[in-house]
Formats: sequence, C-alpha cells, structure tokens
Amino acid sequence: MRKAFQAAAGLGHPRARPALAGALPRRNPASACGTSTDSLVSRFCPEKTRFKDHAVPNASWGPDMLRLHRELVEKRRSGWVKVPSFRSNREHIRGLRLPPGLAAPPDASDCRLFTRCIEEEGQGFEYVIFFHPAEKKAICLFQPGPYLEGPPGFAHGGSLAAMMDETFSKIAYLAGEGLLTLSFNIRFKKPIPVGSLAVLNVVVEKIEDQKVYVSCIAQSRDQQTVYAKSSAVFLQRQLEEESSP
Amino acid sequence: MRKAFQAAAGLGHPRARPALAGALPRRNPASACGTSTDSLVSRFCPEKTRFKDHAVPNASWGPDMLRLHRELVEKRRSGWVKVPSFRSNREHIRGLRLPPGLAAPPDASDCRLFTRCIEEEGQGFEYVIFFHPAEKKAICLFQPGPYLEGPPGFAHGGSLAAMMDETFSKIAYLAGEGLLTLSFNIRFKKPIPVGSLAVLNVVVEKIEDQKVYVSCIAQSRDQQTVYAKSSAVFLQRQLEEESSP
Repeated sequence: MRKAFQAAAGLGHPRARPALAGALPRRNPASACGTSTDSLVSRFCPEKTRFKDHAVPNASWGPDMLRLHRELVEKRRSGWVKVPSFRSNREHIRGLRLPPGLAAPPDASDCRLFTRCIEEEGQGFEYVIFFHPAEKKAICLFQPGPYLEGPPGFAHGGSLAAMMDETFSKIAYLAGEGLLTLSFNIRFKKPIPVGSLAVLNVVVEKIEDQKVYVSCIAQSRDQQTVYAKSSAVFLQRQLEEESSP
Repeated sequence: MRKAFQAAAGLGHPRARPALAGALPRRNPASACGTSTDSLVSRFCPEKTRFKDHAVPNASWGPDMLRLHRELVEKRRSGWVKVPSFRSNREHIRGLRLPPGLAAPPDASDCRLFTRCIEEEGQGFEYVIFFHPAEKKAICLFQPGPYLEGPPGFAHGGSLAAMMDETFSKIAYLAGEGLLTLSFNIRFKKPIPVGSLAVLNVVVEKIEDQKVYVSCIAQSRDQQTVYAKSSAVFLQRQLEEESSP
C-alpha cells in the first residue's frame, strides 16, 4: 500500500467530472466518505518509502525554511505529519484504480508532477508540506526559485496559485477524500520575492454535502506581509482499489 | 522600445500593492489609463525582435495546434496580432521603470518566465497567444506537456490556472494597462489530457474604475469539451519610462 502514496496529491488536481460523484463503491461506510483521516495518512504519508522524496532539505533552502522545517519535523509527537513528495504520480497509484473518466493513457513516458517539473535545486518549486490530521490544518513552506518568475525578481502569480492548488489537493484528500477540485479562488496582495520563503497556512474549513472546503493564507515568515489568500472546494471521491489479479 | 516588450506579460502577474494605484504619472491622459491599445500593441507586439520568440511552432506541436496557429497567423489582416513570448522579462523591461515596490533586485542570474520554465520542446508549456485589439479578445493555444502532470495522463489544474493567468496578464495590459492582478477565480470541469490541445478564449469584459475585468473558457478544439472557466480582475497601472541618463 505504501507505494500507492501520492495518488492523493496527483488526483486532487484532476478537476474531473462532478457528474461521476457517488459512482464508486465505499470501502467503509462508517465515515463520511469511506475512510478515516488516520487511515489515509498512514497509507499516503509513510515515514519510509522506496521512492525518492523531494521534500527534503537541500543546499538551496534558506535559513528560515530550514529552521521551520526542523521545527515541524520535531513536532511529530504533537501530531504534525510530513507529506512526502515524489517526482511523478504514476509509480504511486499502483494498487489503486482511477475513477472512470480519469484512466491514465498507456503511455508512461517521462512524466512529472507539475510542482516537481524543475529538477535543478533551488530553481523551481522548493516546498514541503506538513499536515496535522487531528486539527485538519497544514503548513506548506514554499521557496519559489528564479524559474518561476513573473515580474523581474518576483514569483509569477501562477506559480503561487499552483503551489496552493497542490497543497490543497493533498490536504483535501487526506482530511476528507476530497479528490476533484471544483473551484479555486485567489486574491493577491503582494508579490513574493524570488528565493524568499512564503509560509502557506491551510485550513480545512468544513466537509459538507460530499464537498471539502479549504482555505489558505500565504505570508512571510514573520507574518508581517500577506502575499495572497485563497480558497477551494473539492468533491469527495474514493480511489478504487484494484482487485487482485 | 521594442526591447521593452514583455513587460506587459511579466508584470501582469505581479500581484502587487493595490494601494499604489494612481501613484504613477500618466503619459497620455486622453485614454482611460494613458495609452491606447494600438500604441501598446505596436510597442509590445513587434513583428520582429532580436530576442528569441518561444511562441513559434516546433516538432512537438500537434496537428490541431499547428492548423489553428496557421489560421490565426493568416488572419492578421482581419486584426489578429500574435503576442511574442520570451524566456525572461528581465531583458525586456529595459527602458521602463517598475512601479514602486516592484523594483527588481540587482541579481540577474538565470531567471525564466514561469510559463517558459521548461526548455525541452513539448515537455512543458507549449503555447501561443493571439490578441484582437479592436474586439478586445484573445485566443491562447495551449498544449500541456508531460512535465505539467497532475493525475496520471492529465495536466495539473495548477498548470492550466498558470496558463490562464499568463494569458490574462498580457491581454489585460494590452487592452487597458491592467498591470496588477487583484483576483483570479477558476472552475474546473474536466481535466486536459497531456499532449492534447486546449483552446483558451479570453474576453475583456469591461474596464471600469481603473480595473480590467477578463474572463476565459478553455475548451477542446471541437468545443465539445469544456475544461474550465475562469475570470480575473486587474488594476490599471502604467509602466513608467526611464528618464534618459
């Protein structure tokens, strides 16, 4: 099951057919959408995996990002869980079947999760996501590199939107099997200087009528600067397990 | 002036300080925000430039994208203008000064416009934008590559959001000097298969109270599939010209 990890991450973004809602079988009818958050976390956030986890410190991470990362790792006992991040979703959905209409094409050439599209350390998306299952909140430490530029010296607004979207999708899935993004809204306040740290605080606002509502505020480390605020709605869907061959 | 091109593109995303509105001098008080669309187009969309234009056909473009591109190029006489696309904004804002609070840091290391962050043909963002100044509408032909993946086989929703944001920013600037994004909203309908063509139809809905309102619908070539709908609001701001040294 561990190898199934980032299905949550990748499938949060799909933006697929709302009309398909409810078409899949439930594994455990006791919870709102079949599976408890603890079960999802243990399944998708293994401490050890045979796949390379890109959400680990490297030489490009600034001192603030390193410090906050260390603090959150040390808070494991108080409930914070690091969400691993792999290069692609393709390897990680083995053992799980995609919902109808989202079946992956047979071609499995060199694919990458969008937010891991740039391999050079520090040039693209440097980020790590921590989730607190009990409080249904998350923190993403995001350090945009110079390949994410919009105006000279600042991150492209689209890169921040993508980072929020990626974080939302993981958290919406882990917190309530929010699998398909229905909508995403963002209000920009100030641009993020390239190479600096943005701290994204994500909250699961509510889970209602098979929808997961999430919100985010992106700020500077000292919380003195708000970069943007956003919200999104996900439709609950289960990943269907493959039947044994 | 030609080298000043993509200031519009890059600076559309900035998401900077709304509070700064009105602080810059107007070059031509006759128009809503100082400069006519025709003047902006001739300035930022030169037919020839010494910089490499990435919005040109390459071997990765599919037949539909090539055909639509050719059709739009041939419609030049009926008012369609191709918007060039360069690797970075840094070279192109020479001769223009950024608004206060958006001054670029002196470091000019290897930077790239986010939507040109992946150099390998066909792997990342393949796109070209055409603008119709008289009708204040635009078309972006977008072919997401496998490095933009979310769910296996489909483009990450964040990549579509980024592509829309980039297109909006160019058009909002050319149509009405919409420079700072205030908000962006997107509703997802169906995911875009990696490697296929999405046609983004953008319309400038209105220009009012120093704001430019734009909307977009992303569809398949045959318009039978709607991928997403979005809208955004930009604040009008002028790029200030450098005084001669």
